[in-house]
Amino acid sequence: MPVEDSPESPFDAHIGTEWTEIGPETARGRIAVGDHHKQPAGLVHGGVLTSLAESVCSKATYEAVRDEGMVSMGQSNQATFLRPITEGHVNALARNRHRGRTTWVWDVELSDDEGRLCALVRMTIAVRPRRAR
Amino acid sequence: MPVEDSPESPFDAHIGTEWTEIGPETARGRIAVGDHHKQPAGLVHGGVLTSLAESVCSKATYEAVRDEGMVSMGQSNQATFLRPITEGHVNALARNRHRGRTTWVWDVELSDDEGRLCALVRMTIAVRPRRAR
Amino acid sequence: MPVEDSPESPFDAHIGTEWTEIGPETARGRIAVGDHHKQPAGLVHGGVLTSLAESVCSKATYEAVRDEGMVSMGQSNQATFLRPITEGHVNALARNRHRGRTTWVWDVELSDDEGRLCALVRMTIAVRPRRAR
Amino acid sequence: MPVEDSPESPFDAHIGTEWTEIGPETARGRIAVGDHHKQPAGLVHGGVLTSLAESVCSKATYEAVRDEGMVSMGQSNQATFLRPITEGHVNALARNRHRGRTTWVWDVELSDDEGRLCALVRMTIAVRPRRAR
Repeated sequence: MPVEDSPESPFDAHIGTEWTEIGPETARGRIAVGDHHKQPAGLVHGGVLTSLAESVCSKATYEAVRDEGMVSMGQSNQATFLRPITEGHVNALARNRHRGRTTWVWDVELSDDEGRLCALVRMTIAVRPRRAR
Repeated sequence: MPVEDSPESPFDAHIGTEWTEIGPETARGRIAVGDHHKQPAGLVHGGVLTSLAESVCSKATYEAVRDEGMVSMGQSNQATFLRPITEGHVNALARNRHRGRTTWVWDVELSDDEGRLCALVRMTIAVRPRRAR
Repeated sequence: MPVEDSPESPFDAHIGTEWTEIGPETARGRIAVGDHHKQPAGLVHGGVLTSLAESVCSKATYEAVRDEGMVSMGQSNQATFLRPITEGHVNALARNRHRGRTTWVWDVELSDDEGRLCALVRMTIAVRPRRAR
Repeated sequence: MPVEDSPESPFDAHIGTEWTEIGPETARGRIAVGDHHKQPAGLVHGGVLTSLAESVCSKATYEAVRDEGMVSMGQSNQATFLRPITEGHVNALARNRHRGRTTWVWDVELSDDEGRLCALVRMTIAVRPRRAR
């Protein structure tokens, strides 16, 4: 699915989100790690991971429902951190687990460039009619 | 507790985190909303809220345990979004709920400048001896 | 709010749930601990705590919305365990944090008879029109 | 891995947990649905699902670490409910996602006898030396 005609996301531009695959089953994105992504100990800040997970799931949901006159909005973001990332990319792979009338649920794996699992995020995206928002 | 001699956090500088109160019982911080914090629909991106919650809890935990030779690291960040924010500040108020040997647990309320509750975050911070990290 | 005319809950009868206060702002319930509530190490099983939290929030939400033709159903149950319980009661105090058109959110504290905080549960209850269920 | 010499779990006996596979990578269990598992609307109570998920992950973790002198204890149970169950079995399939020094993390799928996904649980089990408990 082409992603170039999606609305722009200023926060994603600010933190460097790249969407590399957007689809209703699977979606991927990544952020190239820079010093400005780090917390005091030199590790990538957990907020970079939760932000990336939400951006990937939100865009994938929105692209899938917008032609039906729906909008999407994050409802919950449940992150478990397993291993720090210090360099390379934060890579997100999101798999859709549920497409209901009012919510979509995604499981996201965040990994480093060695393919090591660094965090798990379960993301619930609310889907609503555009006018009722 | 003075916060000026804490290590710097580049990601917090990048997204504009201000810590306004740091203590072992209660901690507060905020981010002044700019266009660069927004997602495509013009709302503050959920990742700004999860990042702020984690920054406030991480710093408050670290300041409390570092003199005992401990370090802290985010273990889980569970966010529930209730209401969008579009302007003013994202304000975080974190209350400590548990100080265990290996984890601290915080409940964070995120609100807008009208005092309306916009998100809830339960944050678990792992605490470990500095050398064993 | 009287609770005697609520529909019966067989699972709650099976595990011993007592509702002691039901209201739209605050709700309470408890379970008197018996050997049949324990896991192999002699501690109350975590499932007793998650079950009690869900029962209290579900009933309080249902009692509040049923006169509007709505039904309620658990959507997410996020539990963090802090301290084991071995005797006395599991006591639940639920505070409402959000009443939206489609979800109610509750924060539940589970404590022992000494008043020590033993677990925290954030419960999201979906609210839907009765016929659309 | 044989499960017959594990310590007994009274709560699991009370709610009917059957463990059908226990291993460090994958574990399975189920509960045959009876009327005593239901909430007022006739659906299986969410607490049955969260209890089963915790029982499967706890036993699988304990069996794997006990020979190293460790014990295990639930630390968090994050459940998202997708679809009600009314009959047959509640079936749990747990996959290990992380084996750290202090925590194991599992992803659990709860499904009905038609194989439909009914809930997702992310379970964190704390692992501690037996004597330090």
